Amino acid sequence: VSFATSKISECARLALAHDAPVVLQYGPSGGYPPLRAHIAQSLGVHESQVIIGQGSLQLLDSLIRVMLSPGDVVFIEEPTYDRTLTLFRRAGANVVGIPLQPDGPDLDLINLHLQQGVRPKLFYVIPDFQNPSGVVMSAQKRQALVDLARKYGFQIVEDSPYRLLRFHGSDLPSIFSMAPDLVIHMSSYSKLIAPGLRVGWMASPTSTMQALLKFCEDTYINPSYFNQALVLEFIQQGWLEENISILKELYRPRLEAMLASLSENMEPPAVWSKPDGGFFVSLELNKPVQVPELFTRAKQAGLILTDGRGFFASGKGDSFIRLPFCALEPAEISEGIARLAKII
Amino acid sequence: VSFATSKISECARLALAHDAPVVLQYGPSGGYPPLRAHIAQSLGVHESQVIIGQGSLQLLDSLIRVMLSPGDVVFIEEPTYDRTLTLFRRAGANVVGIPLQPDGPDLDLINLHLQQGVRPKLFYVIPDFQNPSGVVMSAQKRQALVDLARKYGFQIVEDSPYRLLRFHGSDLPSIFSMAPDLVIHMSSYSKLIAPGLRVGWMASPTSTMQALLKFCEDTYINPSYFNQALVLEFIQQGWLEENISILKELYRPRLEAMLASLSENMEPPAVWSKPDGGFFVSLELNKPVQVPELFTRAKQAGLILTDGRGFFASGKGDSFIRLPFCALEPAEISEGIARLAKII
Repeated sequence: VSFATSKISECARLALAHDAPVVLQYGPSGGYPPLRAHIAQSLGVHESQVIIGQGSLQLLDSLIRVMLSPGDVVFIEEPTYDRTLTLFRRAGANVVGIPLQPDGPDLDLINLHLQQGVRPKLFYVIPDFQNPSGVVMSAQKRQALVDLARKYGFQIVEDSPYRLLRFHGSDLPSIFSMAPDLVIHMSSYSKLIAPGLRVGWMASPTSTMQALLKFCEDTYINPSYFNQALVLEFIQQGWLEENISILKELYRPRLEAMLASLSENMEPPAVWSKPDGGFFVSLELNKPVQVPELFTRAKQAGLILTDGRGFFASGKGDSFIRLPFCALEPAEISEGIARLAKII
Repeated sequence: VSFATSKISECARLALAHDAPVVLQYGPSGGYPPLRAHIAQSLGVHESQVIIGQGSLQLLDSLIRVMLSPGDVVFIEEPTYDRTLTLFRRAGANVVGIPLQPDGPDLDLINLHLQQGVRPKLFYVIPDFQNPSGVVMSAQKRQALVDLARKYGFQIVEDSPYRLLRFHGSDLPSIFSMAPDLVIHMSSYSKLIAPGLRVGWMASPTSTMQALLKFCEDTYINPSYFNQALVLEFIQQGWLEENISILKELYRPRLEAMLASLSENMEPPAVWSKPDGGFFVSLELNKPVQVPELFTRAKQAGLILTDGRGFFASGKGDSFIRLPFCALEPAEISEGIARLAKII
């Protein structure tokens, strides 16, 4: 990964030059007000509906503590982001996995659960270039989820850190834009500028946000405005758009190399996702796998795999392989997939 | 408050110039390794016993989540830091207040509780220039607490953000230095450089720290190394010591003005603390006070008071007034105390 270090350094200087007394002092828990206002404006909501924190995961943890009690039902896509699964489990939630299809979660199964009386408080989804699968949820499924949320009274948590990293095709509307009264939207500058800044954000309906702001103030007073002011300078210099373009140019050939080498090397019954952006392609081997042995062989072949079972709510995922393509050169990717094909 | 803005800006530049690939990337939850090592060395412990976070309050919240279950007994000094009280209550702890005397918490009462079978998991203390009272715990009471902790099997949480801001006299040993196997020590750069950097830290025995590091990784992956690397540069330039000297020179006359105007304006039965440093003097009116009326009169006199009851575990504090002296000029302090004397 290459960071825009000199630009980031310049933005740190500008942030202090422009607003040191605010940036270096305590302040409200919602985050650096001008960045809050910028994010709110980009979403078309009031800035009081936005909170910025030390990465979006920390905000999700706080949201969970505000909204969920032990035993509350939460729907997740299966597979889903393993760190989120950890947070839901830690909160004692009753996590119900909804299998992910190539166009999003299995609507029939969601309907079945709801018709049987299962009542989730939250449905956590990553609709754009999902982690770990790479799947993009279709516009139809986005609308269907909103309709179900309205009918059955649950909220949707839409986690969108990869949304702006689309290399081909056009954006689908965010779920938040379709129903801002039902959806908690979260994103981050980690994938767009640098993770080490730890600047993520969340937008939500007002009542949830009021509780969240108070909870976060009680927990850590406020996040660092310095990093947030730096991000705002980066945006105002026009460097965020520029950086996103640079990243797309960097990642697109890596995705292409990944998809090409999967086509060359993998055979049925294996299938894989074919995303137009993001960080991940996923490979489903569709055959029984002995995970410890697979990992041993992978290690011998110089490959580091993430245990696929960590992305599933329970008992599945042994034949699921997440393939992150952004941190490797195309040649490394081709070589890695060729080696992987040999050991599976 | 005046911040060392240009030095902070220079340190931001240096942090990125020296270590951008580490500073801008994800990393272990314990914090920026070189700052961790620096703090550990200053305490004489292994760096694996130190965690740096987004302010020390956030680390305390995480510690509470790792260590306490609802109903667990926690001892606190009474009065104590109101934000800590909020965290203990939120965790469902059974908070037992131990009245603070001019040399620290009431040992007789602690002994009485312990002899009656009350078993705290934690005793939270601020031994140096306590918030809100200004009290410094005597060396004898520090040792007595350590002895009791060892005998009855509880841990001491020593919160020390003001320790280095001593204007007169000599330091007493930290409780941590007396029993690093029993004490969780926490501090911060908020009062020494700038709160907005949100860099606080905690040191603890190894077993507690292992659980805490895992918990924090699950919650927010890692804190911002950028701010932490900036702090380390500030230290390495010699600017932390210099800044502490500047702050002492700035705050000392403010404390003196506070104590002088209390002597001039207040009469028995009112008593007040006479600290040698820190941020706070406290005034105990020792007479019944109608809080809403006092606040109304204070507001009319242009004074902003913090509700003293927030610093007490239950039902007390209406005649307790915290007097922060660091953010006001000596003349403002004298004028304020004169006005306060008239309305009480």
